[in-house]
Amino acid sequence: MATYHIAVLPGDGIGPEVMEQANRVLDAVCTKFDITLERTTYPVGGFAIDQHGEALPQTTLDGCEQADAILFGSIGGPKWDSLPLDKRPERAALLKLRSHFDLFSNLRPAKIYSGLEHLSPLRSDIAQSGVDVLVVRELTSGIYFGQPKGLEGEGEEQFAFDTMRYSKREIRRIAISAFEAAMKRNKKVTSVDKANVLVCSRLWREVVEEVAKDYPEVKLEHIYIDNATMQLICDPAQFDVMLCSNLFGDIISDECAMLTGSMGLLPSASINGSGFGMYEPAGGSAPDIAGKGIANPIAQILSASMMLRYSLGEVDAADAIDAAVVKTLEDGILTAELMPKEERVNASSTAAVGTYILQQI
Amino acid sequence: MATYHIAVLPGDGIGPEVMEQANRVLDAVCTKFDITLERTTYPVGGFAIDQHGEALPQTTLDGCEQADAILFGSIGGPKWDSLPLDKRPERAALLKLRSHFDLFSNLRPAKIYSGLEHLSPLRSDIAQSGVDVLVVRELTSGIYFGQPKGLEGEGEEQFAFDTMRYSKREIRRIAISAFEAAMKRNKKVTSVDKANVLVCSRLWREVVEEVAKDYPEVKLEHIYIDNATMQLICDPAQFDVMLCSNLFGDIISDECAMLTGSMGLLPSASINGSGFGMYEPAGGSAPDIAGKGIANPIAQILSASMMLRYSLGEVDAADAIDAAVVKTLEDGILTAELMPKEERVNASSTAAVGTYILQQI
Ligand SMILES: CC(C)[C@H](C(=O)O)[C@@H](O)C(=O)O
Ligand SMILES: CC(C)[C@H](C(=O)O)[C@@H](O)C(=O)O
Repeated sequence: MATYHIAVLPGDGIGPEVMEQANRVLDAVCTKFDITLERTTYPVGGFAIDQHGEALPQTTLDGCEQADAILFGSIGGPKWDSLPLDKRPERAALLKLRSHFDLFSNLRPAKIYSGLEHLSPLRSDIAQSGVDVLVVRELTSGIYFGQPKGLEGEGEEQFAFDTMRYSKREIRRIAISAFEAAMKRNKKVTSVDKANVLVCSRLWREVVEEVAKDYPEVKLEHIYIDNATMQLICDPAQFDVMLCSNLFGDIISDECAMLTGSMGLLPSASINGSGFGMYEPAGGSAPDIAGKGIANPIAQILSASMMLRYSLGEVDAADAIDAAVVKTLEDGILTAELMPKEERVNASSTAAVGTYILQQI
Repeated sequence: MATYHIAVLPGDGIGPEVMEQANRVLDAVCTKFDITLERTTYPVGGFAIDQHGEALPQTTLDGCEQADAILFGSIGGPKWDSLPLDKRPERAALLKLRSHFDLFSNLRPAKIYSGLEHLSPLRSDIAQSGVDVLVVRELTSGIYFGQPKGLEGEGEEQFAFDTMRYSKREIRRIAISAFEAAMKRNKKVTSVDKANVLVCSRLWREVVEEVAKDYPEVKLEHIYIDNATMQLICDPAQFDVMLCSNLFGDIISDECAMLTGSMGLLPSASINGSGFGMYEPAGGSAPDIAGKGIANPIAQILSASMMLRYSLGEVDAADAIDAAVVKTLEDGILTAELMPKEERVNASSTAAVGTYILQQI
């Protein structure tokens, strides 16, 4: 019987309530597949600021160090928005965890589930043609972390600067992530850059071309970020895996998520070179609906499934969760935001969706 | 009788044929409003490379220097894509003209014309709610032009770097453009940044807040670029003026253009501190349809109208062109790409649309 240690960081807003459902579903697959998941819960985000004075207390970081993976909820909210930037939940916890564990490979799948096409903000013929994209975003370099960064000068000539920076090594490892993912999907990689303007993008293209040689079955295309933003809207079905730098991936992955119209269904994974990873919903902490029992737990549950698949290698358990989610959606067990306004009286609660999913396992 | 000198740079692809129609329409308003526009045509882009060995010959630059404004067509095409980056039409001509004339204020209006809602790739209820956005993009600084930029190191540790850089002065002048534009529109500015990650964005926010104090009637909001990309898709009607840095404006303006579904209708202006400007369609040179007489001339004609309005101060003439275009669209005088596939047998040619427009003047 396999035993794993998981650091559970529920965070703020809807984090704790959706995490509760993910834990219930994990209990169900553990029983079925004879897995032991030792889970320890740690404070993070605004909750940790309120309790311990900082968004990522040392005990939380230590707990993550000792774990095989991190299951993360969501963090932030208006209460902590007036803190200095470096203390805020997003930077002090999220960016810190990414860089501390070198979680360079961020996988953000976005798809329109069959039957939920009407949620997409796209014209119905385009939504019907489908959105099923995996954004592979570089997460620990680029303009997020590049040095130098700062302010210089005086008066009107005072200027700010940020450095976008990529090494061949950094580009190569994320490109490999994208091609490996494409081999398990539809064998197409679209690399997003701005090679007509950025030196980083030129090196990016060069290294991506080199990596592509090792994957002759995968079709590679290059697209400028401005054009990618447009093509996603008028013809999203042309994309399979989209390979992006940190900043462009931030933009493209959010655009893809919005195109599905169901952010509450989308998980994400952030993985390092040894398979250690952090798994979290694509959406935010949604403070406006927190505590009401109406938040969609599926993104959190699918994040747990990605954790089983990518960090623990428990593929059967992950498949079981994914299948249970598909069945639940097909059976119309939906939280309110997935339903047309006039049908929302029949919406399922956070807990009811969790229960239905674990019953399918 | 006012006399102006215009440098006309038709360029490549559909550039020359749509420029021909813009010239005919300009002739009509000149007669009606007693304006003299002395126009001299100069080579630019791939055409100039073929004829003179470079995308922006000195004679063209000199001609622009002596003019009151530049009316630009479009440049580039597969024929010149294999040239080294610095020789290619986009960089050698477009970026060069922008920086040479300090054309820092790029105005890109995007709207869905009444009756053309079906062209939008958005779900019909969203398209019906309307898209009417003016993107004000900073065009001569940021990561496009920031120094240093380059490649260093060896082997896998070789790295590329680009510098995003903004001074208070540069931010202030583009912010003023945005607020001035908002005063003539719906009095709302949404400033797009990534202040949770970039030092440039923090200085951007600070200066934009300062400028806002001089425009108490204008409502100011700040939005992160990733969220802006999403909000544009699910609720574009919330935006009036979107104020963006160079890179974010590149992305946001193209997204806005795509949301209208009618890129062939969208003009743009790039203006400097003395009112000198370059006016060009938002779309590209469309080499695939060049020379067939089917390209939509309206973006070029509206670019001529923006030129009359912003560089020459001939507001009545500009209003006349805009009204003629609206009437033409309402009367259903459309090029093929604006029509449903099954109706395209009734499409108007490039010249027929030009003729109809000038008849309305
Ligand atoms: C909160 C923010 C710093 C973060 C990012 O830009 O990476 C978020 O937008 C994301 O995509 O995870
Ligand atoms: C051709 C390219 C350099 C240019 C830009 O990025 O500015 C284009 O995309 C534009 O928006 O005018």
